[in-house]
Amino acid sequence: MSRAKSGVPDRLPTADSASLRDHPLLKACRREAAPYTPVWLMRQAGRYMPEYRAMRERHGFLALCTNPELAAEVTVTAVRRLGVDAAIIFADILLPLIPMKVGLSYEAGDGPAIERPIRAAADLARLAPVDPAASLGFVADSIRIVRRELPDLPLIGFAGAPFTLASYLIEGGASRDFRHTKSLMYREPTAWERLMTALARITADYLAMQVAAGADLIQLFDSWVGALAPADYRSFVMPHTRAALASIRGRVPAIHFGTGTAGLLEAMREAGGEVIGLDWRVDLRAAWERLGPEVAVQGNLDPMVLLAGREEIRRQVRAILDRVAGRPGHIFNLGHGVLPETPVDDAIAMVEMVHEMSRR
Amino acid sequence: MSRAKSGVPDRLPTADSASLRDHPLLKACRREAAPYTPVWLMRQAGRYMPEYRAMRERHGFLALCTNPELAAEVTVTAVRRLGVDAAIIFADILLPLIPMKVGLSYEAGDGPAIERPIRAAADLARLAPVDPAASLGFVADSIRIVRRELPDLPLIGFAGAPFTLASYLIEGGASRDFRHTKSLMYREPTAWERLMTALARITADYLAMQVAAGADLIQLFDSWVGALAPADYRSFVMPHTRAALASIRGRVPAIHFGTGTAGLLEAMREAGGEVIGLDWRVDLRAAWERLGPEVAVQGNLDPMVLLAGREEIRRQVRAILDRVAGRPGHIFNLGHGVLPETPVDDAIAMVEMVHEMSRR
Repeated sequence: MSRAKSGVPDRLPTADSASLRDHPLLKACRREAAPYTPVWLMRQAGRYMPEYRAMRERHGFLALCTNPELAAEVTVTAVRRLGVDAAIIFADILLPLIPMKVGLSYEAGDGPAIERPIRAAADLARLAPVDPAASLGFVADSIRIVRRELPDLPLIGFAGAPFTLASYLIEGGASRDFRHTKSLMYREPTAWERLMTALARITADYLAMQVAAGADLIQLFDSWVGALAPADYRSFVMPHTRAALASIRGRVPAIHFGTGTAGLLEAMREAGGEVIGLDWRVDLRAAWERLGPEVAVQGNLDPMVLLAGREEIRRQVRAILDRVAGRPGHIFNLGHGVLPETPVDDAIAMVEMVHEMSRR
Repeated sequence: MSRAKSGVPDRLPTADSASLRDHPLLKACRREAAPYTPVWLMRQAGRYMPEYRAMRERHGFLALCTNPELAAEVTVTAVRRLGVDAAIIFADILLPLIPMKVGLSYEAGDGPAIERPIRAAADLARLAPVDPAASLGFVADSIRIVRRELPDLPLIGFAGAPFTLASYLIEGGASRDFRHTKSLMYREPTAWERLMTALARITADYLAMQVAAGADLIQLFDSWVGALAPADYRSFVMPHTRAALASIRGRVPAIHFGTGTAGLLEAMREAGGEVIGLDWRVDLRAAWERLGPEVAVQGNLDPMVLLAGREEIRRQVRAILDRVAGRPGHIFNLGHGVLPETPVDDAIAMVEMVHEMSRR
């Protein structure tokens, strides 16, 4: 048997792709009726889960991400514990910044920090070129392992969208107001264009690699794009998001996600994605009406509700399902990642509630 | 002449109220055509202005707020420097927390901190009752001074809305995810209701006092309400916002403002306000269409644009005015407060641009 350099078989496993195609999650992506509403949780493998914390006691965050066996173990453990309808590969949206050699590290609490941020046109020259197949092959390897371990479950690959990647590269970490990012965008539009074009290319290649390795769908995280005015989004971001999605269009479905995007929904839909991921700050039905009939939607429980006890969780899960009213094309999820303080049992209960209440 | 206890005349000044009524800003509140688009800036008296920094070198933040002569001086200086169409009384949305005796202070950088936050039903008992006329009379006195100094300019009074006040009281300061606030809201709905009812009462009394002292319109700041899901806003917040506005309804116009509210616009309109204040994350025209023809709008330049140089400022001011297309009922403003790094000359230039480009 041929083996990839990491020792992982590079042949696709013997999953029954016909049955996988009929999985409720992939049906929802095509807006086809399914026997129940599929559900997964952003950051479903994370600090709220004791199994994950135990892994993290033995391994650093980047060590977990870059070791295919460990990343696959984290991915699979979360899925088995939660009973969700999809696995999402354990990784981080900033992994493509490693080969750029900007000095990425993760501080205590997993917050990213970039030692040498990009602040001006001149800084662009020192960004090392990125070939995901050469430098991020460990993600492809993790995908192959998970594919083999979970042959019957849709597997989600993912990447950060160009704007969100740019914001970390420019700010050097998390930001509240994206001051340096907007400054470069407004004051050096040519440099901005070059940076975004490069990031879109890398993202497209990275997603294509994940699909080739066996991802059944992908999620594009434009987590912080909600900081932008709609007109700025259209001028400075939308073409690059579209380019980032180009490599996988027509091959696998894409979920296009951001937070604080209630003013950007129509523009995000134009940028692409078979599914638009919504945060909790919009009414799901009103948002879907604005998005139109040609897309599916994912969302949108406030992650804080998982800290509010079973009764409130049940009330809010029911309210969201009521708003959807059985319309095909809904993937249930939180509006952003699971919070570290979330009781695991309540996350499991939430998944069960979605399945029970939506069964048709 | 009768004098209030602070030494300020308590009689209204001899402003020509007929001409003030025809001021473009008050016409905009009534959606009447005006010769140009009126403009003011949230936090127009603030750290970006050298005159303000000089005042702050001599006086603490709360000292400035609570001394009517000083607060009036800060208010008037900013207006004269900028050439804006309204004065807004120099104060802070958290001033009503002083008589509640929760230990409010302002740390370096003016970020508020509350020593004894409210975290549970039991904590409500120790909130001291608030009579704004007795404990916040200095704001009324500042209003009387500014009214006299600027008889021809609309004067804006303001208050924090119940949700935003509650969020500070509960979190103990600024917050990113409003965890404790949502926890109380979900887990102790009866305590939440009591707290919000009390805050709405205080806000209503405080606004009524400001109008009695001479404020021509008010702005209700629900700055952080955008953290909520629309259904939660309607259940837990909207009735209290409506109650907060009840005391001044039909007496003076109200601007109802929040940030991150692109998913809440219809609900905020239902809660009240002749003008809805928009942040920059929505397209102004699309937002106004959703709000309907019965309200005016205020906004919505990204404050970061004022750091981007004259050319970009001009482009973006023009883009917003183009979206409005001369429709009566638009007050130009930033989408949130002026940033401390804003060049004063560029803020002045922005005000002039709005006047020039909109002149009919």
